[in-house]
Amino acid sequence: MTVRFGLLGAGRIGKVHAKAVTSNAGAKLVAVADAFEQAAKDLSAAHGCEIRTIDEIEKASDIDAVIICTPTDTHADLIERFSRAGKAIFCEKPIDLDVERVRQCLAVVKETGATLMVGFNRRFDPHFAAVRKAIDDGAIGDVEMVTITSRDPGAPPAEYISRSGGIFRDMTIHDFDMARFLLGEEPVAVTAHASVLVDKKIGELGDYDSVSVILSTASGKQCVISNSRRATYGYDQRIEVHGSKGLAAAENQRPVSIEIANGSGYTRPPLHDFFMTRYTEAYANEIAAFINSIATGVKASPSGEDGLIALALADAALRSVKEGKTITV
Amino acid sequence: MTVRFGLLGAGRIGKVHAKAVTSNAGAKLVAVADAFEQAAKDLSAAHGCEIRTIDEIEKASDIDAVIICTPTDTHADLIERFSRAGKAIFCEKPIDLDVERVRQCLAVVKETGATLMVGFNRRFDPHFAAVRKAIDDGAIGDVEMVTITSRDPGAPPAEYISRSGGIFRDMTIHDFDMARFLLGEEPVAVTAHASVLVDKKIGELGDYDSVSVILSTASGKQCVISNSRRATYGYDQRIEVHGSKGLAAAENQRPVSIEIANGSGYTRPPLHDFFMTRYTEAYANEIAAFINSIATGVKASPSGEDGLIALALADAALRSVKEGKTITV
Amino acid sequence: MTVRFGLLGAGRIGKVHAKAVTSNAGAKLVAVADAFEQAAKDLSAAHGCEIRTIDEIEKASDIDAVIICTPTDTHADLIERFSRAGKAIFCEKPIDLDVERVRQCLAVVKETGATLMVGFNRRFDPHFAAVRKAIDDGAIGDVEMVTITSRDPGAPPAEYISRSGGIFRDMTIHDFDMARFLLGEEPVAVTAHASVLVDKKIGELGDYDSVSVILSTASGKQCVISNSRRATYGYDQRIEVHGSKGLAAAENQRPVSIEIANGSGYTRPPLHDFFMTRYTEAYANEIAAFINSIATGVKASPSGEDGLIALALADAALRSVKEGKTITV
Amino acid sequence: MTVRFGLLGAGRIGKVHAKAVTSNAGAKLVAVADAFEQAAKDLSAAHGCEIRTIDEIEKASDIDAVIICTPTDTHADLIERFSRAGKAIFCEKPIDLDVERVRQCLAVVKETGATLMVGFNRRFDPHFAAVRKAIDDGAIGDVEMVTITSRDPGAPPAEYISRSGGIFRDMTIHDFDMARFLLGEEPVAVTAHASVLVDKKIGELGDYDSVSVILSTASGKQCVISNSRRATYGYDQRIEVHGSKGLAAAENQRPVSIEIANGSGYTRPPLHDFFMTRYTEAYANEIAAFINSIATGVKASPSGEDGLIALALADAALRSVKEGKTITV
Repeated sequence: MTVRFGLLGAGRIGKVHAKAVTSNAGAKLVAVADAFEQAAKDLSAAHGCEIRTIDEIEKASDIDAVIICTPTDTHADLIERFSRAGKAIFCEKPIDLDVERVRQCLAVVKETGATLMVGFNRRFDPHFAAVRKAIDDGAIGDVEMVTITSRDPGAPPAEYISRSGGIFRDMTIHDFDMARFLLGEEPVAVTAHASVLVDKKIGELGDYDSVSVILSTASGKQCVISNSRRATYGYDQRIEVHGSKGLAAAENQRPVSIEIANGSGYTRPPLHDFFMTRYTEAYANEIAAFINSIATGVKASPSGEDGLIALALADAALRSVKEGKTITV
Repeated sequence: MTVRFGLLGAGRIGKVHAKAVTSNAGAKLVAVADAFEQAAKDLSAAHGCEIRTIDEIEKASDIDAVIICTPTDTHADLIERFSRAGKAIFCEKPIDLDVERVRQCLAVVKETGATLMVGFNRRFDPHFAAVRKAIDDGAIGDVEMVTITSRDPGAPPAEYISRSGGIFRDMTIHDFDMARFLLGEEPVAVTAHASVLVDKKIGELGDYDSVSVILSTASGKQCVISNSRRATYGYDQRIEVHGSKGLAAAENQRPVSIEIANGSGYTRPPLHDFFMTRYTEAYANEIAAFINSIATGVKASPSGEDGLIALALADAALRSVKEGKTITV
Repeated sequence: MTVRFGLLGAGRIGKVHAKAVTSNAGAKLVAVADAFEQAAKDLSAAHGCEIRTIDEIEKASDIDAVIICTPTDTHADLIERFSRAGKAIFCEKPIDLDVERVRQCLAVVKETGATLMVGFNRRFDPHFAAVRKAIDDGAIGDVEMVTITSRDPGAPPAEYISRSGGIFRDMTIHDFDMARFLLGEEPVAVTAHASVLVDKKIGELGDYDSVSVILSTASGKQCVISNSRRATYGYDQRIEVHGSKGLAAAENQRPVSIEIANGSGYTRPPLHDFFMTRYTEAYANEIAAFINSIATGVKASPSGEDGLIALALADAALRSVKEGKTITV
Repeated sequence: MTVRFGLLGAGRIGKVHAKAVTSNAGAKLVAVADAFEQAAKDLSAAHGCEIRTIDEIEKASDIDAVIICTPTDTHADLIERFSRAGKAIFCEKPIDLDVERVRQCLAVVKETGATLMVGFNRRFDPHFAAVRKAIDDGAIGDVEMVTITSRDPGAPPAEYISRSGGIFRDMTIHDFDMARFLLGEEPVAVTAHASVLVDKKIGELGDYDSVSVILSTASGKQCVISNSRRATYGYDQRIEVHGSKGLAAAENQRPVSIEIANGSGYTRPPLHDFFMTRYTEAYANEIAAFINSIATGVKASPSGEDGLIALALADAALRSVKEGKTITV
């Protein structure tokens, strides 16, 4: 079986997914849609697929699945439309910035029985997945404490910030999902400290650029998350899981791993510059998992509910900062 | 000038300090006092010093300074006595488990003008001190976020726990001091999550064995602390300071740093087994700094106030856990 | 310009090159030829290219370049044929196991003016290339001493050994090329020690499985090579260049770079299992460089002469072992 | 039993051994002798020992053992004298620069039954010793190939070079001993390449500053040694042992092991500046082993014969360079 794809959105992440689809032996990219004609043309030319409107893709009988890479405020509507159209849906996170809207959307998904997978790409990073596997294999016993470090190389422009939903819903949300992925138990309490240390404009927009979060579960497992919108040394992405029998950790990845030594010491090059290069394999593996779930009927994961819970944790973290107390979820 | 020492307490840590004193060219160990006769005899034999009572040391004209390594509940009384006796005082942490008692004690120290140094040994670890120096040298710009990981190889016996004052006052207190040492600005808010994951007996005694703490300062700097009473791989002691221009980190230390590779992968030996071996150099450097402060008149640091503030942070962390909210200090 | 390719040989390495060609925006895989019909069919199906005979490819007007991945004893003949047919040629190493035959072949290449590139893939590894770039950038001053460690995960079967030309011409030849790439000056003296430590059958076939080689240049630069047909921990591929101002080194690569710590220590997974996974990027970069040289007219490198010199060094190393003395080349 | 020591030579290395003796609970430093009065006085003051002449130490009934740290050309004479005087002898390497003179000297040692230990300190480095132990424990199976990297931070002055016996007898001799220590089988063939890359003056004195050596044993085990009189990044001291079941390696040591990351990458400080700081523990362990051998009667190791064999390998390496061939020993 070959899964036939329509791609909604031909921007930066759309291109990544287009490549993942066309490189996958079990899939075919049939069409792309994008409001910007040139973006659609470029992607069409690069991958030899048609250009269609979203409406045409919705009605197409030669398309089994869609990948939604359009702006965030269109996600929930598109998920509903394509659920009803009987397509399998891969949607970039978040489904929506509003928890209530996400709930409505997931009700439609449930009602229609559509396949929905949400783009928490980091679960598919080979290194992070290997940590999860080590846990499953019993290598570290029961999980006790998780530490997640996630720092962007630089702050995004003000325009991006103002539409992002804030750092917790935009950036930390990935770490909330990773925390759940690693803890293996739902967080029930959230505390966050947040401040503006990197860029004052971010503060003027009512957002933060530096946050620390503690999550804890009913049985007392804990997770600490450290986020910053600044990391001069590259895209800092580390996880560490401490269990009753040991520790499992995934260190940062580098594009080039040489070392130069001289009188100043031993120097290795900086990390990857951002998520596009850091998570190349994760993106390919993610789409492969989506294709596999369509082909085999295995439930797609992370699901819409995973998207919802991560968003709810983000909301709780924000409330924790505003109210100066631990929020129970 | 040779600083002449009396040692109060010939137990485990007393022996460490005795060695530091006798190895230091600027100091001499004159006498030791210990309630256990055999302990005093052994230490006396090992270092060729006299055995005296605490009273005799207090009145001795051939002793300039004392090192207090007796049980915690005697610290404040001894500091007061030796302050009045005109001796310079090095006291193992904590001064007392009760903040009010510490305040009274420090009032006496102030009144008498005595030199008092508190044993936060980690500031003198060459690796941690080098991180502090990198900050001072401007290598990472303004400090923004500090991460401290501190895990003991195993939980102490119930007897120890019940007299310890609890994990925050016994164990995390070192990390609170390290946080202040690295942040360079006083924490004003504390949030902690705590649970019992390692040993149920610890919970039955009303204490915790696994804690996560966030500190934040007035300008928004943040520090995250992760503590566990368990680490199967050895004594886990790491710090990481993230600043506006870069990152400075001190990794774990190993007694032997070889690597064995085979079909199972590449394996390095476990870390040091505990603080006695991990912080050998720190203990020697600490006493050297104390001797230097006596010899030169440079103010002893960390001071009694440093001891007080760390204890107040520990109290705040405990309140945060009990009340489920961020505590302002 | 799109470079149109014919692929000669659809075996293991042929598949790697087919993928490199089809993933390259500047190239097209037109046809494949293989004596084994099924191999040709499989590759044709995977990449949507035609199946042709070698004769047909030689005469085809829609093919600009060929990649030769057939058995070693056919290489020289094919290079000559396709040189005369006016095709650009990429040939897997070695051109031939006999230096004299290589010389004749290169004479034909020269006479016809054909483009010929030899498959010393390691020059195109991003990490090794970064070491070369560090040298070119002056980061380590003048190159003085090079150390190359190259160990296969396991010994090949006897059948392979007997047709391989021996360890120096089959395995060390890559390191001879790497030595030249890094030294930046021709070796003029070769000494080798060789023995059979891994598999007695290899000795019975007159070959060795463990060798150490020293190369030196006219100005006194030195290179040490350490080879074994055994490495229980994976495919061990390291280079280190020591210069007047510093050291540049490329460490081993791992498919997954997590670390598990417990009472036995800290363990990282084994290295890549062999060259196919270790040098994935190198193979793609190598073909990209070949395509670029065709498209732009930049001389293809490594050239046939590079292939010849590496083979001559292999011959000299073997003579050194047999005669117990340093061989001047 | 307390072993009572006389120290011959109060220079740089003499001070190191004096400290090792006085810190050892089983030993006492009774007297020091040095031709330079001030050196003897300083050491006497630092350790509270007497100043005596060599004659007085030879005849002293309160001295059991001597440590010889005088200039190389006095070693053999002193060993003979103190052997006849019935003292246990620790002698810094080399016994003499002339193999024949060493043989005569060892004959006297044998005849008198004296205890003689030679100062190959590296065997006592905790990391190198741990590699040896891993071999003994069977962790890597049968030893096959050893790699030793040993580079000095900088070239010594011409005066030192001219009395040193040349790089093989002065510097590589330590690596020859380490090779024997790790191979567990005597080298039977030596090949060396040598050149002058660091300092022309060294060449003018007839010596080399950059050498590569291959040793091989009767069963075919191999060892590669890489030496340079230059290493801008500190004192480079690494060993690696490749066996039938795996690899054991000891990496370089650093005085401070922090890491600073910024836009230029991740930088760790340089290595130790030279042997005094790198091998601090090794020197203490070495003297402890000597004391133990006197106290328990266990044969002192490394022995005079170990000193002789390492010197013979150095001579063979030099011949190999001069004659351009492999030398059988």
